[in-house]
Amino acid sequence: MGGNSFGKAFKITTFGESHGAGIGVTIDGCPSGLEIDTAYIQKQLNKRKPGQSKVTTQRKEGDEFEILSGVFEGKTTGTPIAIFIKNKDQKSKDYDHIAKAYRPSHADMTYTTKYGHRDHRGGGRSSARETAARVAAGAIAQLILLQHGITIDAGVTQVGVIKTDKDLIKLDWTQVENNIVRCPDPEKAKMMEELILATKKSGDTIGGKVSCIINNCPVGLGEPVFDKLHADLGKAMLSINAVKGFEYGSGFDCLDMLGSEHNDLWELDDNGAAHTSTNYSGGIQGGISNGMPIYFNVAFKPVATIMKDQSSVDKDSNPTTVTGKGRHDPCVVPRAVPIVVAMAALVILDHLMLNRMVNL
Amino acid sequence: MGGNSFGKAFKITTFGESHGAGIGVTIDGCPSGLEIDTAYIQKQLNKRKPGQSKVTTQRKEGDEFEILSGVFEGKTTGTPIAIFIKNKDQKSKDYDHIAKAYRPSHADMTYTTKYGHRDHRGGGRSSARETAARVAAGAIAQLILLQHGITIDAGVTQVGVIKTDKDLIKLDWTQVENNIVRCPDPEKAKMMEELILATKKSGDTIGGKVSCIINNCPVGLGEPVFDKLHADLGKAMLSINAVKGFEYGSGFDCLDMLGSEHNDLWELDDNGAAHTSTNYSGGIQGGISNGMPIYFNVAFKPVATIMKDQSSVDKDSNPTTVTGKGRHDPCVVPRAVPIVVAMAALVILDHLMLNRMVNL
Amino acid sequence: MGGNSFGKAFKITTFGESHGAGIGVTIDGCPSGLEIDTAYIQKQLNKRKPGQSKVTTQRKEGDEFEILSGVFEGKTTGTPIAIFIKNKDQKSKDYDHIAKAYRPSHADMTYTTKYGHRDHRGGGRSSARETAARVAAGAIAQLILLQHGITIDAGVTQVGVIKTDKDLIKLDWTQVENNIVRCPDPEKAKMMEELILATKKSGDTIGGKVSCIINNCPVGLGEPVFDKLHADLGKAMLSINAVKGFEYGSGFDCLDMLGSEHNDLWELDDNGAAHTSTNYSGGIQGGISNGMPIYFNVAFKPVATIMKDQSSVDKDSNPTTVTGKGRHDPCVVPRAVPIVVAMAALVILDHLMLNRMVNL
Amino acid sequence: MGGNSFGKAFKITTFGESHGAGIGVTIDGCPSGLEIDTAYIQKQLNKRKPGQSKVTTQRKEGDEFEILSGVFEGKTTGTPIAIFIKNKDQKSKDYDHIAKAYRPSHADMTYTTKYGHRDHRGGGRSSARETAARVAAGAIAQLILLQHGITIDAGVTQVGVIKTDKDLIKLDWTQVENNIVRCPDPEKAKMMEELILATKKSGDTIGGKVSCIINNCPVGLGEPVFDKLHADLGKAMLSINAVKGFEYGSGFDCLDMLGSEHNDLWELDDNGAAHTSTNYSGGIQGGISNGMPIYFNVAFKPVATIMKDQSSVDKDSNPTTVTGKGRHDPCVVPRAVPIVVAMAALVILDHLMLNRMVNL
Repeated sequence: MGGNSFGKAFKITTFGESHGAGIGVTIDGCPSGLEIDTAYIQKQLNKRKPGQSKVTTQRKEGDEFEILSGVFEGKTTGTPIAIFIKNKDQKSKDYDHIAKAYRPSHADMTYTTKYGHRDHRGGGRSSARETAARVAAGAIAQLILLQHGITIDAGVTQVGVIKTDKDLIKLDWTQVENNIVRCPDPEKAKMMEELILATKKSGDTIGGKVSCIINNCPVGLGEPVFDKLHADLGKAMLSINAVKGFEYGSGFDCLDMLGSEHNDLWELDDNGAAHTSTNYSGGIQGGISNGMPIYFNVAFKPVATIMKDQSSVDKDSNPTTVTGKGRHDPCVVPRAVPIVVAMAALVILDHLMLNRMVNL
Repeated sequence: MGGNSFGKAFKITTFGESHGAGIGVTIDGCPSGLEIDTAYIQKQLNKRKPGQSKVTTQRKEGDEFEILSGVFEGKTTGTPIAIFIKNKDQKSKDYDHIAKAYRPSHADMTYTTKYGHRDHRGGGRSSARETAARVAAGAIAQLILLQHGITIDAGVTQVGVIKTDKDLIKLDWTQVENNIVRCPDPEKAKMMEELILATKKSGDTIGGKVSCIINNCPVGLGEPVFDKLHADLGKAMLSINAVKGFEYGSGFDCLDMLGSEHNDLWELDDNGAAHTSTNYSGGIQGGISNGMPIYFNVAFKPVATIMKDQSSVDKDSNPTTVTGKGRHDPCVVPRAVPIVVAMAALVILDHLMLNRMVNL
Repeated sequence: MGGNSFGKAFKITTFGESHGAGIGVTIDGCPSGLEIDTAYIQKQLNKRKPGQSKVTTQRKEGDEFEILSGVFEGKTTGTPIAIFIKNKDQKSKDYDHIAKAYRPSHADMTYTTKYGHRDHRGGGRSSARETAARVAAGAIAQLILLQHGITIDAGVTQVGVIKTDKDLIKLDWTQVENNIVRCPDPEKAKMMEELILATKKSGDTIGGKVSCIINNCPVGLGEPVFDKLHADLGKAMLSINAVKGFEYGSGFDCLDMLGSEHNDLWELDDNGAAHTSTNYSGGIQGGISNGMPIYFNVAFKPVATIMKDQSSVDKDSNPTTVTGKGRHDPCVVPRAVPIVVAMAALVILDHLMLNRMVNL
Repeated sequence: MGGNSFGKAFKITTFGESHGAGIGVTIDGCPSGLEIDTAYIQKQLNKRKPGQSKVTTQRKEGDEFEILSGVFEGKTTGTPIAIFIKNKDQKSKDYDHIAKAYRPSHADMTYTTKYGHRDHRGGGRSSARETAARVAAGAIAQLILLQHGITIDAGVTQVGVIKTDKDLIKLDWTQVENNIVRCPDPEKAKMMEELILATKKSGDTIGGKVSCIINNCPVGLGEPVFDKLHADLGKAMLSINAVKGFEYGSGFDCLDMLGSEHNDLWELDDNGAAHTSTNYSGGIQGGISNGMPIYFNVAFKPVATIMKDQSSVDKDSNPTTVTGKGRHDPCVVPRAVPIVVAMAALVILDHLMLNRMVNL
């Protein structure tokens, strides 16, 4: 009953720890006949990998993947695809000091208590390194979605209190890869970068928000009453390390509006097709996509590992002091962007496949 | 592949439409030997039922339930429990005007397009009436949790811009049932009530926030990496009608804090047990409960049915005007409280059962 | 984690006990737009219902069903379909003698030990009465399969040692409903009937074999490596009360053949389509249907309730004597035929839907 | 929705093809704290590996496994265990002749039609090589079962028409590893060996039966009404390559018996514990284990690859002739024994874990 699988139709199971042999994923249910663009997959992994810029951790991980099964002569065969990413550049000794101590706001205490026995090196299974496996699987999902014309954009829209005030739909998402913070608003990107560097310099960390928009999603995706499209998107995002909140469409801002302001009126375009004049619904109504852009926000907390002394306890109930060691991100959101995209792609593809079964 | 089941160990499947024979639920996996307290179940249903106060819809639904199976001589037998709630006081004619028209920000267009054929009366399956089945199943989950000493409190903490500014942990949750808004802060309750009534009078609707706190949850619940406790709580809440956002612990407020401020330091109590000095983690670390109170917020949008004319289109691509008819809630949160509690109970019990399988 | 659900795409959950309010089923995943032929469903239920002939139990159960949800204006809506069959003509007092005693080769001891608390009346949940719910759900599956041209025949091919020696494929399956044993071989039907009546007269019971053939199944159904089509058919059949064995194609007879005799050679028909010259494979190769008729056999044990004294023990570890009371079948297979058909239909439809997801 | 996962609580997903990089398995849900005995796992794999004796194929595969995750300092951590077995000694050219041709009674035609695109080398995913992954996972399950005192024996009880006539319960199962056929009846083992060698010499193949007995299984395993213990055992066995039939307890022989002969009478042992005087039930009643030995038979067809010319067709609808090449087993059952044991272990462990959730 382990919770390491995600998706029903396009089902992934991830495995691996931060400092073990590596991390990986099996995909059961990938359609047959997809041409695997390995460069595309590597490109997504590179956006997540450590050491890519001065605002991220300086650990160097190649994150080169190997496909172990399910692909023949460059195409998927419909059988399970296993992908493996070997671990490199691990400095397990950096973690000796926490073999027993509970780092504040980490998973040390909960894993130790739940499982009794755990791999503490680099956080083990609770490390965000596991998300590399999600990015690889998500890249394959994206390749399929692209064939259906569905694209996904995501970027950093807030770091600390610095945020873009532009409408998500109107942002120029092509800007995201033009700055190291991955912010679609170039002006704010600069300020965010400075804030992260200043925070880092002080040995501290800071949180941020990633926004995501899914374009060209057909009407009909989502399986009420529980597997509503936004409920599955929410679970997907909340399953990412360090996420504290999820909202879609108007989100928590809906509290400031009356029904008469918040309702999205239906109108016809020149071809007689229905669309809404506003999109507070975030492209989803009754848990089912309505053809408008789907968008949502994800809040990431400040990284728990800081370069300052913190008082704590260890598993033998002794008081102790924990001091950050190793190489860590001062702010997680620039590297979280490809993870958000990957998880969104997994949800959308899953529902695209599930929706095939609705009719006779 | 329909999405009408929730939970893995304590698995529920709901069925039924607003104006059909009734709505119901089957529970597969309920432990054997539980004494069924029918008064307790009815009490939870009564908190959700329409017509209970002047801030809710004036529809009268008895919401009396019948247990069709799985209980013998007052106790559960370990076999599936089916519960049925007959529909009464339906005025299907109130919905004739929307047999073809798409109500703004409702599920009319998406259901029609996805399924081709739908029961439009009272919203059919997309009606929040379905949540009565959740409340019944959740009440049974609560009865089991109570045997483990786990309790769940929830209440309305915001309506429009009126919100309580008190710490969730310090609120007096026994106040919730002392006012018709179900707000744990009596002073704000009065203001909220007035705001709802004024909104209703103008034919409009307003949104609100429900906060929930889970007490005495043992360490160890949650199944990373995907079935993290807060991820399942998030999905549960997002699956409730009208929900737009979910956050736990510090939630979106984490964006205003540095890591050194946000980290929850471990300390020892007099018995040598570890707890955290603050609880920005919301009782969950690495997706697993850490023994501290679990708390979260859920944002509900303003009800889509308003008593004003709105321009729209119908399924034959004709422009039309939709006017609210029937008896609807001006604000959904007072009646949403027991639904939030029910879904929380289902998640916690499910994980309590799953956690039994972690050790040899 | 209860085991009361079957199927992935067309997923059913059954509930109910022999002497409770009734038995029922929810179907989650039934495609939208199916015209519900209630007479067809009742016809299948009538084939299973008690009291239909002198070779079956004399209990009278109407087995009239009610559709509680998921159907609007005569058509399925894509939302869960709940069906309920009220219990009637129960004589619970007939079972007072076994409230504590363990009937030989019944589920009394295992249910009592596993669940602690059980409804013993009429066998409770372990009663074959539960299969009425399967027949109702299976009838809906058959209605969909018929639209795809897929038909399922089944009949009794053995009672005790009396068996038909004709090739399954060549039997005249229209004969099945022309005799009360439901044997497709009229000559043997008569002998079987006499054997059953003689066995009944002596207060004893006898077993039998049901054979099933699925016609016009398209190539491609089955999801290796675990959800092979025959593995799911096998599980479906083995889940029916009293079943002791399952074989498909050549089955256990394959032990008498060499590979050169057993292999099905491929050849072309006049249209250039491939088929096999023999069909020892039973229409399934590598777990996937190959377009040939699918056929299999199911062995049912002699009914455990006999009208003779049997020594036994009770749950308090006292020796006791159990004597058959009530109205029971001397041989279960005539009434098992529609159950086999229903379960076969559920498996084939499930795989027909799953197979839609194999391609891009 | 791929069908490559098995089990609910102890859930495995296998991947890999015969001539790809290798084959593997992930286990999600393995309890924490199990000491991993790698020698034990390798021993089970060795029983399945090719080239082990003159009655098996002469291919040499080391079948050395690597644990990629989930084990730390020799013990399981409760996180997913991934195991990988690299492919070696593949002679892919041996399969060039079947890139297009459909081998009789193989999965060539069905895989090609279902998936469009497949890895034909060595049968690809449809190769029994995949079962090595099951044996590795099953070995871990056995290690856990051993801690609960549950043991599993299996052996070959029939090859062609040569069969042991001894009672399964009374056979000396320690004899199984003393002969290359893996038959628990030494006298018949010799005859079976000769029959296999004579068949091989003639370029032909022959089928056989594997019998399995599970000892010391506690009362209560099995989740009716669908996930009955024998139904899950049946599906597990039917999912193994070449299996045509499954029966448990009296199996198909129940047809020769009257109810009064077939019923297992309950009696008390000296400690007042209940057991049955006979065991036609095969240790399972109402789908739940009753504490008696569980036993069943599995029929394996003659291997489809024979060293003789066979007429066939290819995927372009041309007639062709297929001639066996490469190194194949003349009879599959000696190497099937560890696979049957592995699948039985996976089912029993899964149900042992599921049964923990039945009580409050």
